[in-house]
Amino acid sequence: MTIKIIAFDADDTLWHNETLYHQTQEKYKRLLQKYINTEDVEEKLYQTEIKNLAYFGYGIKSFSLSMIETAGLLTNGCISAQDLLQIVKFAKEMLDAPIELLPGVRDVVDRLSRAFDLMIITKGDLLDQKRKLSRSGLEPYFKWVEIVTDKTPKVYADLLALHRLEPSEFVMVGNSLRSDVLPVLSLGSPAVYIPYHLTWAHEHDIDHLPVDNRYLQIEDISFLPALIDQLN
Amino acid sequence: MTIKIIAFDADDTLWHNETLYHQTQEKYKRLLQKYINTEDVEEKLYQTEIKNLAYFGYGIKSFSLSMIETAGLLTNGCISAQDLLQIVKFAKEMLDAPIELLPGVRDVVDRLSRAFDLMIITKGDLLDQKRKLSRSGLEPYFKWVEIVTDKTPKVYADLLALHRLEPSEFVMVGNSLRSDVLPVLSLGSPAVYIPYHLTWAHEHDIDHLPVDNRYLQIEDISFLPALIDQLN
Repeated sequence: MTIKIIAFDADDTLWHNETLYHQTQEKYKRLLQKYINTEDVEEKLYQTEIKNLAYFGYGIKSFSLSMIETAGLLTNGCISAQDLLQIVKFAKEMLDAPIELLPGVRDVVDRLSRAFDLMIITKGDLLDQKRKLSRSGLEPYFKWVEIVTDKTPKVYADLLALHRLEPSEFVMVGNSLRSDVLPVLSLGSPAVYIPYHLTWAHEHDIDHLPVDNRYLQIEDISFLPALIDQLN
Repeated sequence: MTIKIIAFDADDTLWHNETLYHQTQEKYKRLLQKYINTEDVEEKLYQTEIKNLAYFGYGIKSFSLSMIETAGLLTNGCISAQDLLQIVKFAKEMLDAPIELLPGVRDVVDRLSRAFDLMIITKGDLLDQKRKLSRSGLEPYFKWVEIVTDKTPKVYADLLALHRLEPSEFVMVGNSLRSDVLPVLSLGSPAVYIPYHLTWAHEHDIDHLPVDNRYLQIEDISFLPALIDQLN
């Protein structure tokens, strides 16, 4: 088989992202400390996020609206307006946060871009993802950028059709079994899983682990070029 | 010249949208009435929205975060948490609102789709715009759907390049001089302006009116097929 396009997830595959959510969640807990026992704040916030996913989708704005809603629920509406407004500020701070590439990313992407067409396939907010890519300095290496509402087998199948690719000509690289690996394997394409030390619970919520000889796992992105060589 | 692709803006060109924002703004003013004189609420909210555009972009989530922020500012933080949380509910109501097509849209789109490739080019939130298109029942008529962060000449130029179109092979139809007409004329393509009775102030904020023989204006979409015939 000959790979033509290597596609990458962005958040927590190319640059740190979940750490930013984690840090914000810590600030959020400190904000709520004067009102409630914050032990189960994370769990309650997660429940709100999942409930709101169909309304708000992924991304920082959605996260912020869910933080506001959860704060209202948990404090029985007794939180001060000032503190709720602080959450809007958290959103802006997140949107302003600098992009930190994961170790080795720039070298690997630079190297692979000389031999393959590279693509980004990422969920999330259109504006925010474009801004992050632009700030990351990685934009010139990617021929295509696809920002999608969800990563289902159909979304991947449509992209393969659009680019007239056979499943064996495409490989997906990412840190989520649920979004980057399982749907891609289901189409018969190889998928490379690179775990990130922090993963949003939703991305771990899978029915089964991959059992497929096209499923590949590496510890960090620096092993990717050798793996692609093997595949080809 | 032979037109190959007819592109449409979506909100307030294919279906009502600004009315929904307008209705929500009225509810918002009623919510704030017990705290302040609401005379300049619209103006203040607009200022917040423009200031936040670079952070939040377009769409309902952005609008809601700006409503929350403005409510905090105008009431000096004295608004109750309950009332701020009501704004998150407004957002969900907006996202749940049924799609009402503008008169004549379905017929015109159906008819034109038999002779041309149709495209949607719309700003806004990825998930929300996709959901509206899906609910509108118009999805099958459109060969391409482009959801973009902004409608600049470069965005249109990139789309023309992607689809290998000469400027004269493309026409844009929409209700915003700023977003749908001026950038398209600047590339040498024709643009059809169909005014909507309500337009967000930002979309009226232009330096000059179009002076170009490729600039066309019609009163409603039912005149579009005849106009396209003339152009071709």
